[in-house]
Amino acid sequence: MPSYKAPLRDTRFLMNEVFDFESHYKTLPNGEEATPDMVEAILSEMAKLCENTVAPLYQSGDEEGCRLENGQVFTPKGYPEAYREFVAGGWQGLSHPVEYGGQGLPMSLGLIKHEMLGTANWSFAMYPGLSLGAMNTIQMHGTDEQKETYLTKLTEGTWAGTMCLTEPQCGTDLGQVKTKAEPREDGSYKITGTKIFISSGDHDLTENIVHIVLARLPDAPAGTKGISLFIVPKYLPGQIGEDNGVSCGALEKKMGIKASATCVMNFDQATGFLIGPPNQGLECMFTFMNSARVGTAIQGVAHAERAYQASLPYAKERRSMRALSGKKDPEQVADALIHHGDVRRMLLKQKAYAEGGRAMAYFTAMYADHMIAGMLENDQKKYDKWDSELGFLTPILKGFLTEKGLEAANEAMQVFGGHGYIKEHGIEQIARDARISTLYEGTTGIQALDLLGRKVLLTSRGKCVRSFSKNLVDFGRQHLKDAKLRPYAWKLLKIAAEWNYLTTRIMLAATKDRDIVSTASYDYLMYSGYAMMAYFWALQAATARDKLENGGNEPAEFYKAKLATAEFYFDRLLPAAKGHADAALKPTRSTMQMSAEHFSFDYE
Amino acid sequence: MPSYKAPLRDTRFLMNEVFDFESHYKTLPNGEEATPDMVEAILSEMAKLCENTVAPLYQSGDEEGCRLENGQVFTPKGYPEAYREFVAGGWQGLSHPVEYGGQGLPMSLGLIKHEMLGTANWSFAMYPGLSLGAMNTIQMHGTDEQKETYLTKLTEGTWAGTMCLTEPQCGTDLGQVKTKAEPREDGSYKITGTKIFISSGDHDLTENIVHIVLARLPDAPAGTKGISLFIVPKYLPGQIGEDNGVSCGALEKKMGIKASATCVMNFDQATGFLIGPPNQGLECMFTFMNSARVGTAIQGVAHAERAYQASLPYAKERRSMRALSGKKDPEQVADALIHHGDVRRMLLKQKAYAEGGRAMAYFTAMYADHMIAGMLENDQKKYDKWDSELGFLTPILKGFLTEKGLEAANEAMQVFGGHGYIKEHGIEQIARDARISTLYEGTTGIQALDLLGRKVLLTSRGKCVRSFSKNLVDFGRQHLKDAKLRPYAWKLLKIAAEWNYLTTRIMLAATKDRDIVSTASYDYLMYSGYAMMAYFWALQAATARDKLENGGNEPAEFYKAKLATAEFYFDRLLPAAKGHADAALKPTRSTMQMSAEHFSFDYE
Repeated sequence: MPSYKAPLRDTRFLMNEVFDFESHYKTLPNGEEATPDMVEAILSEMAKLCENTVAPLYQSGDEEGCRLENGQVFTPKGYPEAYREFVAGGWQGLSHPVEYGGQGLPMSLGLIKHEMLGTANWSFAMYPGLSLGAMNTIQMHGTDEQKETYLTKLTEGTWAGTMCLTEPQCGTDLGQVKTKAEPREDGSYKITGTKIFISSGDHDLTENIVHIVLARLPDAPAGTKGISLFIVPKYLPGQIGEDNGVSCGALEKKMGIKASATCVMNFDQATGFLIGPPNQGLECMFTFMNSARVGTAIQGVAHAERAYQASLPYAKERRSMRALSGKKDPEQVADALIHHGDVRRMLLKQKAYAEGGRAMAYFTAMYADHMIAGMLENDQKKYDKWDSELGFLTPILKGFLTEKGLEAANEAMQVFGGHGYIKEHGIEQIARDARISTLYEGTTGIQALDLLGRKVLLTSRGKCVRSFSKNLVDFGRQHLKDAKLRPYAWKLLKIAAEWNYLTTRIMLAATKDRDIVSTASYDYLMYSGYAMMAYFWALQAATARDKLENGGNEPAEFYKAKLATAEFYFDRLLPAAKGHADAALKPTRSTMQMSAEHFSFDYE
Repeated sequence: MPSYKAPLRDTRFLMNEVFDFESHYKTLPNGEEATPDMVEAILSEMAKLCENTVAPLYQSGDEEGCRLENGQVFTPKGYPEAYREFVAGGWQGLSHPVEYGGQGLPMSLGLIKHEMLGTANWSFAMYPGLSLGAMNTIQMHGTDEQKETYLTKLTEGTWAGTMCLTEPQCGTDLGQVKTKAEPREDGSYKITGTKIFISSGDHDLTENIVHIVLARLPDAPAGTKGISLFIVPKYLPGQIGEDNGVSCGALEKKMGIKASATCVMNFDQATGFLIGPPNQGLECMFTFMNSARVGTAIQGVAHAERAYQASLPYAKERRSMRALSGKKDPEQVADALIHHGDVRRMLLKQKAYAEGGRAMAYFTAMYADHMIAGMLENDQKKYDKWDSELGFLTPILKGFLTEKGLEAANEAMQVFGGHGYIKEHGIEQIARDARISTLYEGTTGIQALDLLGRKVLLTSRGKCVRSFSKNLVDFGRQHLKDAKLRPYAWKLLKIAAEWNYLTTRIMLAATKDRDIVSTASYDYLMYSGYAMMAYFWALQAATARDKLENGGNEPAEFYKAKLATAEFYFDRLLPAAKGHADAALKPTRSTMQMSAEHFSFDYE
């Protein structure tokens, strides 16, 4: 496994040259401290932690995995120490309120931190990552006392948190949740039920774990409207070490992310505390769903980047055959792989997805900052506006970037040939780890339905597409007369029109045949992802070109490589979008006509 | 893991209704015995062996893996017994000469047998599968004595074989092979060197293992023209149990196919015997390369089928949410997954690739039969003609079907949601096992270069495309006036034109810029795969329609499902072809312009 190096040059390019985070932070109520110096210090310190402490545990953590002994989960060797270093650096509370011990910096910095940490070692990053879900829930819906009791410890990082949603009979369809919450006289609740797939459900990194649990009150209505949220700590505050009826029943054996403990959690009359209003647990849960999903979308960027960092050195070092246009390393027995066009295609694909995805994520992170600003300023309208903007971007990022991250990891394996299949090189681990990203936090199919069914059709009648695609139109108009950027400008104008046309056509078809929302959703999502990434590659190309002409940072080749990668994206990856648009518009018949029992004839 | 059921209904549909294997077998010198009764007996007996003995070892074999103890490799529990049953049934020699103990049946039956066996348990199927490589090599290039000594035992299955090509420094680029062969006075050779990634390199299934080894004679010219082939048995004939300097140095730890032993093989002055002419080892090796690769192409069909058989019952059983067009199971807590359009899309994709791939494989198997006929009849011209036809189909099948098999396995995981990532369900194993198929026997990139660079441009100047696409044109013309088949007819005419246009354009571009052969190769291969599968889906649709109108076998719904799946393929999968064509035609600049050192700026 090659070492990890934080791609700081690209991060700085996006923050300082493409997006101007400095000005952005000046508009935020919590942006004052986020000065360029502070940002730079965060980036370089985080990079050190990731490169020197967290990344080296990536492969060993996969080999060793977690273990459950006498009811206690142990993480792989080195994880507790690395986590302590993470806590000592104050990293957990980076974007959380100062009053609970955080640094109060904008959320975008938290996401960028998460990107580096996750690229270095996704399994490791999941422990503090899951805590964020609990922290956000308590911050948003907890009482002052709950915040004082739990948020302080969580922000510090000495306690960790989880989200306990899934049960054996339901994942996506949380209306089927059965876990019971019975009130006690002291105002607390007895929580009883089984939760599965609980990431970080138990571990040895912190002295306590705070579970946010979905459960039903005795008189709760059936379905989604009868679910409430509870804080159920492993140990009750002040009673560390004393059994609270919360236990890990088993660790799941998984394809990957083996250093992340995926637990079956049993709640046996565990003492819990209601958080938020009764029966409105799902709404509360969904408050931070968008930003949590952006956190998972980043996994796509992380694995594309890590895969690229692993396969590029191999492509430069390994020699096989001669380049078609003539010997490149005549004194060697054969040319390096990187001189072969098809190997370059695989490398550039990874690079294009990693850097294009990063641009999408950073842009979206700014929306998250604005949403938080609305919350901090108690400006509900502002909050709603940005939450809704975020709601459109989120499923596209989560669905598209995780699929492309997996594709990138698979391409990296192809670069290695048969060696890619061998554990030794660590590249197959990236593909296995990437594989979870399209499944959890809502599968790609669920993201697609959320995008097309909810965000585009139900909530906005296509307005969100019209609104976002204005960015493409603006870019197109602005650069149409620029010889270098004209191809991108022209293409973006075309895509903007096509995207809206596609949306309208599906919207019209759906009035007669609801099934199209489901049959078209996946291809619609993928189309939207390609379209959106095209915009962000055009934006990067425009910046690179501007810097090349008007003086940017050294080396100039960085900008030239950006231009080349943008060209590659438009030339070689974007053509796939059309196929998705064509497929999405096809009548539902071919998908829906076969009866369930005729899907097979020989088996079942 | 759901049980495996051989898809005999579909096999019979292809053999008896789409292709007419009965007539085909009558044209073959070795086809006399392959009567419909015999074929039916083979299918149903093989199905029993696969369903009852081989498939149940699939998941346990993955969990247990192989182990190396005191230089001996042991396969997982149950494998030796299952292999003995396979040998007792005379399955190994099904398509090999009667004079060496085989049944002398056509090769296509061997491939269909291999498909069932591989779908039941790919790792298991690799042991007899690798033997076939050795058997074919000895049959084609061995002396009568070598045939008598080795081929008899191999055909019986009491000995097994391997192909030892790859070395640490080279896989694709076999010109770099370093293993040495020094002549002894008795006419044998001392073989010394290290081979890696040797599937079935050692195991406990047979009493001896016959390695076919690529090595260099002392005076051999450098590169590919200095490589010879040797038979190097684990134990010399008549000296079973006595060390011959052949040992397994290590077992590779791999992502999947864990029940298949992937060995580092050390040859330490091992006694070997030259097979075929000196320095022409690579040519000899490539004799059967096409049929070997068709064998690997079948892995794509196998995993798509197995994934489908695993995910379909889950989709029928698991309940989540309500169908968009209204409740389908109103009395239940939620509708079964299969009522959701996007889940159907994922299922139909698997079905379309499994059945479309199977049709492609069976068609290709008939070409292999003709090639063997040429050999049996000592008709070099006939042999060359069919070998060349096969040479065009092979990289398309290997490249396209294995990529699609992997895609299908990944879609099956998506159907399971988070449960797909858990080992318990066995579905992630299919995805891990499928992952090797695009890497070994020539990566997808190598297949692509073989197709475009060698088969299309170098050898035939596009003639092979013109020739094959005539099938599409003929179908188009024949069915253009048929209302039901017209959309397919029309589409095939369009594809035939587009495929030839694409070929010509690339051919012209290549005269000015050789790099396009490499940069376009992957997309060209994928386009060709989509185009070819479109033809085979149209063919199946035409047969199904004919049977529906003119009376076929029961149930009629089988044919309706075929028509529906064909429609799905054309509507929802084929649109991706256009994107590949567009990408393939793009100038090489975006792929080739960046210098190797500018692929990255932060790392290395």
